Amino acid sequence: MKKFLLLNGPNLNMLGKREPGVYGQGTLKDVESAVANLAAANGAEVECRQSNHEGTLVDWLQEAEEAGFTGVIFNPGAYTHYSYAIRDAIAGIRVPVIEVHISNIHARENFRHTSVTAAVCRGQISGLGAKGYELALIALMEMEKEREL
Amino acid sequence: MKKFLLLNGPNLNMLGKREPGVYGQGTLKDVESAVANLAAANGAEVECRQSNHEGTLVDWLQEAEEAGFTGVIFNPGAYTHYSYAIRDAIAGIRVPVIEVHISNIHARENFRHTSVTAAVCRGQISGLGAKGYELALIALMEMEKEREL
Amino acid sequence: MKKFLLLNGPNLNMLGKREPGVYGQGTLKDVESAVANLAAANGAEVECRQSNHEGTLVDWLQEAEEAGFTGVIFNPGAYTHYSYAIRDAIAGIRVPVIEVHISNIHARENFRHTSVTAAVCRGQISGLGAKGYELALIALMEMEKEREL
Amino acid sequence: MKKFLLLNGPNLNMLGKREPGVYGQGTLKDVESAVANLAAANGAEVECRQSNHEGTLVDWLQEAEEAGFTGVIFNPGAYTHYSYAIRDAIAGIRVPVIEVHISNIHARENFRHTSVTAAVCRGQISGLGAKGYELALIALMEMEKEREL
Amino acid sequence: MKKFLLLNGPNLNMLGKREPGVYGQGTLKDVESAVANLAAANGAEVECRQSNHEGTLVDWLQEAEEAGFTGVIFNPGAYTHYSYAIRDAIAGIRVPVIEVHISNIHARENFRHTSVTAAVCRGQISGLGAKGYELALIALMEMEKEREL
Amino acid sequence: MKKFLLLNGPNLNMLGKREPGVYGQGTLKDVESAVANLAAANGAEVECRQSNHEGTLVDWLQEAEEAGFTGVIFNPGAYTHYSYAIRDAIAGIRVPVIEVHISNIHARENFRHTSVTAAVCRGQISGLGAKGYELALIALMEMEKEREL
Amino acid sequence: MKKFLLLNGPNLNMLGKREPGVYGQGTLKDVESAVANLAAANGAEVECRQSNHEGTLVDWLQEAEEAGFTGVIFNPGAYTHYSYAIRDAIAGIRVPVIEVHISNIHARENFRHTSVTAAVCRGQISGLGAKGYELALIALMEMEKEREL
Amino acid sequence: MKKFLLLNGPNLNMLGKREPGVYGQGTLKDVESAVANLAAANGAEVECRQSNHEGTLVDWLQEAEEAGFTGVIFNPGAYTHYSYAIRDAIAGIRVPVIEVHISNIHARENFRHTSVTAAVCRGQISGLGAKGYELALIALMEMEKEREL
Amino acid sequence: MKKFLLLNGPNLNMLGKREPGVYGQGTLKDVESAVANLAAANGAEVECRQSNHEGTLVDWLQEAEEAGFTGVIFNPGAYTHYSYAIRDAIAGIRVPVIEVHISNIHARENFRHTSVTAAVCRGQISGLGAKGYELALIALMEMEKEREL
Amino acid sequence: MKKFLLLNGPNLNMLGKREPGVYGQGTLKDVESAVANLAAANGAEVECRQSNHEGTLVDWLQEAEEAGFTGVIFNPGAYTHYSYAIRDAIAGIRVPVIEVHISNIHARENFRHTSVTAAVCRGQISGLGAKGYELALIALMEMEKEREL
Amino acid sequence: MKKFLLLNGPNLNMLGKREPGVYGQGTLKDVESAVANLAAANGAEVECRQSNHEGTLVDWLQEAEEAGFTGVIFNPGAYTHYSYAIRDAIAGIRVPVIEVHISNIHARENFRHTSVTAAVCRGQISGLGAKGYELALIALMEMEKEREL
Amino acid sequence: MKKFLLLNGPNLNMLGKREPGVYGQGTLKDVESAVANLAAANGAEVECRQSNHEGTLVDWLQEAEEAGFTGVIFNPGAYTHYSYAIRDAIAGIRVPVIEVHISNIHARENFRHTSVTAAVCRGQISGLGAKGYELALIALMEMEKEREL
Repeated sequence: MKKFLLLNGPNLNMLGKREPGVYGQGTLKDVESAVANLAAANGAEVECRQSNHEGTLVDWLQEAEEAGFTGVIFNPGAYTHYSYAIRDAIAGIRVPVIEVHISNIHARENFRHTSVTAAVCRGQISGLGAKGYELALIALMEMEKEREL
Repeated sequence: MKKFLLLNGPNLNMLGKREPGVYGQGTLKDVESAVANLAAANGAEVECRQSNHEGTLVDWLQEAEEAGFTGVIFNPGAYTHYSYAIRDAIAGIRVPVIEVHISNIHARENFRHTSVTAAVCRGQISGLGAKGYELALIALMEMEKEREL
Repeated sequence: MKKFLLLNGPNLNMLGKREPGVYGQGTLKDVESAVANLAAANGAEVECRQSNHEGTLVDWLQEAEEAGFTGVIFNPGAYTHYSYAIRDAIAGIRVPVIEVHISNIHARENFRHTSVTAAVCRGQISGLGAKGYELALIALMEMEKEREL
Repeated sequence: MKKFLLLNGPNLNMLGKREPGVYGQGTLKDVESAVANLAAANGAEVECRQSNHEGTLVDWLQEAEEAGFTGVIFNPGAYTHYSYAIRDAIAGIRVPVIEVHISNIHARENFRHTSVTAAVCRGQISGLGAKGYELALIALMEMEKEREL
Repeated sequence: MKKFLLLNGPNLNMLGKREPGVYGQGTLKDVESAVANLAAANGAEVECRQSNHEGTLVDWLQEAEEAGFTGVIFNPGAYTHYSYAIRDAIAGIRVPVIEVHISNIHARENFRHTSVTAAVCRGQISGLGAKGYELALIALMEMEKEREL
Repeated sequence: MKKFLLLNGPNLNMLGKREPGVYGQGTLKDVESAVANLAAANGAEVECRQSNHEGTLVDWLQEAEEAGFTGVIFNPGAYTHYSYAIRDAIAGIRVPVIEVHISNIHARENFRHTSVTAAVCRGQISGLGAKGYELALIALMEMEKEREL
Repeated sequence: MKKFLLLNGPNLNMLGKREPGVYGQGTLKDVESAVANLAAANGAEVECRQSNHEGTLVDWLQEAEEAGFTGVIFNPGAYTHYSYAIRDAIAGIRVPVIEVHISNIHARENFRHTSVTAAVCRGQISGLGAKGYELALIALMEMEKEREL
Repeated sequence: MKKFLLLNGPNLNMLGKREPGVYGQGTLKDVESAVANLAAANGAEVECRQSNHEGTLVDWLQEAEEAGFTGVIFNPGAYTHYSYAIRDAIAGIRVPVIEVHISNIHARENFRHTSVTAAVCRGQISGLGAKGYELALIALMEMEKEREL
Repeated sequence: MKKFLLLNGPNLNMLGKREPGVYGQGTLKDVESAVANLAAANGAEVECRQSNHEGTLVDWLQEAEEAGFTGVIFNPGAYTHYSYAIRDAIAGIRVPVIEVHISNIHARENFRHTSVTAAVCRGQISGLGAKGYELALIALMEMEKEREL
Repeated sequence: MKKFLLLNGPNLNMLGKREPGVYGQGTLKDVESAVANLAAANGAEVECRQSNHEGTLVDWLQEAEEAGFTGVIFNPGAYTHYSYAIRDAIAGIRVPVIEVHISNIHARENFRHTSVTAAVCRGQISGLGAKGYELALIALMEMEKEREL
Repeated sequence: MKKFLLLNGPNLNMLGKREPGVYGQGTLKDVESAVANLAAANGAEVECRQSNHEGTLVDWLQEAEEAGFTGVIFNPGAYTHYSYAIRDAIAGIRVPVIEVHISNIHARENFRHTSVTAAVCRGQISGLGAKGYELALIALMEMEKEREL
Repeated sequence: MKKFLLLNGPNLNMLGKREPGVYGQGTLKDVESAVANLAAANGAEVECRQSNHEGTLVDWLQEAEEAGFTGVIFNPGAYTHYSYAIRDAIAGIRVPVIEVHISNIHARENFRHTSVTAAVCRGQISGLGAKGYELALIALMEMEKEREL
């Protein structure tokens, strides 16, 4: 059974509570359930983790391969904009990573327009709300199918 | 029946011929068929257009609302990086637009890291290959469903 | 009879429909009529053109002299901020051109603070609404009178 | 009777003497008379002041409302390019201010391309010579008419 | 009883030991006691925490509301200059936060002149030594009084 | 009896009238009274001055020492962002100066994020409203006490 | 028979009329004839096209290969400085392209010092007047000879 | 009898008192006497003025011609680095102006490395202490001699 | 017996696994053994630690003095490029620190060309592979010898 | 007999040995012979010099006129990007100079995109291999012919 | 007998020949004689050297002390703007150096506005023509007198 | 017998005399002897050269291969920061080069933070005093051993 890692970075545990005008009203729990359900419907599994700690996110990314994950759906939160440590962690593993942002980062403050991690991910989805996580899962499952051919 | 506009900008008519290492081997025809099939499978319709002309893209975006399109899947090609005229056209219509890039623009030349159009689109999908267009369609159909509630 | 060219660039055909909070409620037709009336009241004539196509605007500017125009009232829209092709077209003709912007470009997004065309125009009027076109006509007629002395 | 303030900043008292190739041969007196005549012809009045002192210009702008001015025609001279104190003074009053420059600031030295005051004015007119002041008066009178409707 | 959180970021546990010429001779313990005494004298309470870990600071800020804190006195240390994760944490809570710096950050290295967190705090106090923490407490108590009116 | 100088720069005479959403509803008079009362309660005295003129502010700062002031509470208004003349005046005297801003300058326009004067002041307080002036007085009185030890 | 494409961008149809001090007195016709003659003298053929339209230039570049051109001599005019669409078109074909500028772009305005297209051309010739086109033809014919070996 | 204007800007009245390590121990009086003596020894006269007010410096520069000054020795103090108003005043008169700085502005803070006034002066002398004023006088007297030939 | 701390930052636990083309094939264990052996051969001892957590690295640096370390060999990994918290920790201790990079950071991505920590280290060694750690140890032992004289 | 100077700057003596992938396999000798042959075939002469020394290149350029050279074909090598001394030498002579680069400098490292010498040369040829020298000779001979008319 | 070194950098041997509009009509010989005469008149001696070679200028500066020079009058020509080697040479000797520029470097191209050498010279004189060298000599003789007191 | 080249650039001949606080008290002779001794102790030889001339350094680097050097220990002095000619020379040879700086270039002036040569060297050692040269020799000897395996 395929296993995917749904990884959320700093402040995403506050979903639903924090600036609902920007991030929507669903909680992190809601988001995780929706992705898990979609995975289940496709015979796959999703493990969900969240941390505010840069080092912990690096640890988890490093372990992703050994832990048998087929792909990572990753919202690095604010670390997107400066964490070269996370960038190096993604570049150092072969498991494909897709970067997801709930809000449209290009329509917000200047510092959010730059992603230091996107260049080493497979791709990036932003501005499509919590739905973006599901689209990322679809894309990863598709990649996996193609890889298996 | 819902109708979506699949809009491709400059040089995307060269898909399959141009730098296949970067853009893949499928032709624009292939991409358009895949999106049309997905739409059909969901009871919707897709109209496909491509132009190398900035002004033509502006014309088509302006007409999108009146023409009854429910959403626009748009790859502005190189215009992404400097066409404020296209930006203004997107900002001037109420039809939701999702920006799509086949390649991971963050992993290429510096000038491709900036999008002047993304801020006025609903969201952006990049680096997920031709599949990105289909994900955009899924997102637009989802938005439409939510809007109808 | 003096003849002036009233030239409008991309998205100005959307006046009245597009962001009325920014651009006002009058349509392009309304603007053109007002300028034409003012010209007529001064024994002059105004020809009105609009295009979303950068190349077409270049074509029209190049023809302005031969076509016998005494002056050009020109709102280059978003091209103001990056079209060096239009800049070169203006610099290449002897007919005086006045740049007009309906909104106050200095009070909007950063990219609108720079005009690459203003340096080769006679002058620039911005932020005075549709009235700005009429002020430009007054200025051109005045210049013509002085030139004739 | 409507009363307008015609305010000129540093070095504009040198008009006619200073760099006539750039600023024309008319003196400040000439400019002021022309504007006053135009006002009179429209049943209005213009009070003319000039100062080289930033603080004095700030004082006068602050007093403009209480002093019953309907609008301010303002050429801040070189202060245009760095006086945030004047910017704050304009932003702090409700009387509409139009910024005027005799020469085309976009066709001169780089430092003249930036206006720190324009964003808080209603609009800006540049490059149309001393005539620009009269156009500003026309625009202010027009605004007043619309406000009264 | 009102409860305030006194939060110190990286290297502030070294107070008294680290560069006493810059930061003074008092230890963190001294600073915390002084603030606690001031609070007690005003019938309030202060809880003191320090961490070198960005993620821990984010965790604590997120918990501040639920934990019933009335306000946060926060010296983010070097994280001031790059931690957008901490910025987002502050922006995500309703508890007012005041940023404090012992030294005058404007009189030191260039990188210390920029605060990425100040924009989402209520205010910032810098250069007034350990006394700055007490001033911040006074300000928070004052705000609370006004809020209660 | 200790004597402090409360110095306010351009446009602060408009407090209460100018953008009350940003600066609050109290007038400059109110602010000055509050600081004077706090001083009196501590057996000290405050002299209050305001000017829109950069040169006048420089004059007053230069005289501060001779005039027997123990410290200066100074809101340089917009001059904060560009007046190197005021910076030099502060650097040239030994009387301690504390810079105060009513609004949070870091949460406003870009040009307000830079202070050219803060580096030569003892410290800076911003965003804490009119209360900031009182905090500055407390800090100056505290410094004086320490100096006397 | 070898066939080369001589492609001229915006405003080059104005040669001879536009700023003769900069571009010389010969017309575009003159330039085209000189290149055609040189080609004929070498048993080759030149097809000449000019357009002010960015999209048309992109169209023509895309067709160059299929149309059997051996090489392209291309003066992109002002598009040199910002048209990433043209850059992508050149990068997408295998036909060699040489960029030509009549004037010395390095001795003119700052914006002309940057070419966004040169990096994907084989080479660039600038400042050698209309003669530059002929030198480009010589270079292309030489390349072709070497390729055939 | 030739008459020269010795003009000193903000904070130069503090010479001797202000940062003697940087500016030396002589007072402004001392400097002025030395220059006056040198002038007298050469059959010329020097009038000495100092102001902290930008506008006053502009006023005096404007009057220099009419007042019959043969040249101006000018230390604009901190205004050197941002006063475009003073720059315009210098550019607007024909009397030659030499800019003098007592300290070596290139060896101090970054903001002192740029002079916005030097470009419109005849020349600049910096770092040679109070002696620099006398060198400027020698240079002006020399220019006058050459002009008279 | 002298004791040195060998400190490795984020992703260096992946040595041998991560991008062997860039970092070589040896594991972190191999590197640590080599340094330990060299120390032993010189009658010294090395303690080896690695963490992906910025805060943990700060903690360890702070403790280095008390823990009796004579020097620190430190590869901060990606934190080199942005961790001012680590910079402050190094600046706050008297134990000498030498920064080591396995790869030549100047020959890689732009962001790796800047080190925010090097300025407060004694020196920096980069590009000499795992050998760089041993060279750092030699340098630290040498410094210690000189200090003891 | 017309005499031209073929001048090569630093590292061009390494042609054939140095990075043949970039610069081709021909030696400097080969290049010089080809240009000399072309000159001979046109009844002209070429003198060839190469130096790694900036000062020597300046010396030779200064002597070019007196030495009777009709034109200079000049590849300044890396000095292209920073030698203002060479720029001044070219600007100081009337002999026309054409700048040549073997490789396409726009397709290489960023620092090679800027030429500080091109602005004072007649023109620039880059990316056309060793052939570029011959094209420069043709251009110079052509200029000479036109000058003689 | 005091001995001064008059040092001229690249292209200054071309004085009188090179751009006389900028540098005047006198030759280097003329300049050197004038300075020598002035020295002689003051019982001092001047040795004159010129080189286009950066390394030679460095050599001469290094030898200045040992060679018994009391001061150096130095026009580094274009090296002013980039030669950190010359800067280091000046910083490495105790002999005072005064930088001289014949033309007003602030009124010319942008690259001439920056001096990398001025910060380590005693002072700088620019724009006062060949006379500037004599003023520098006067200043050096004055310094020497003061040093001897 | 292995032979290494110890190459020192501008001003390093002044070691011991020049700014001993920064560079230490040892002379260049001392440094060279130390490295030579270390080489001898390892059965190798070192040839020592120093020049202030950029061109000479380029010459020597070019000859290094032919001259049979196994490696180059190179302190380019100030040329580190701008000599692209030296960069190209290093890139053009296969002999490995290690860049050495005696002082910690990251802790000094801004211009010293950038090395234009490091990217094409094998590695860089800075801040470890004259000892850095010996460490570089150790590294080169190690590389040679590995190459021989």
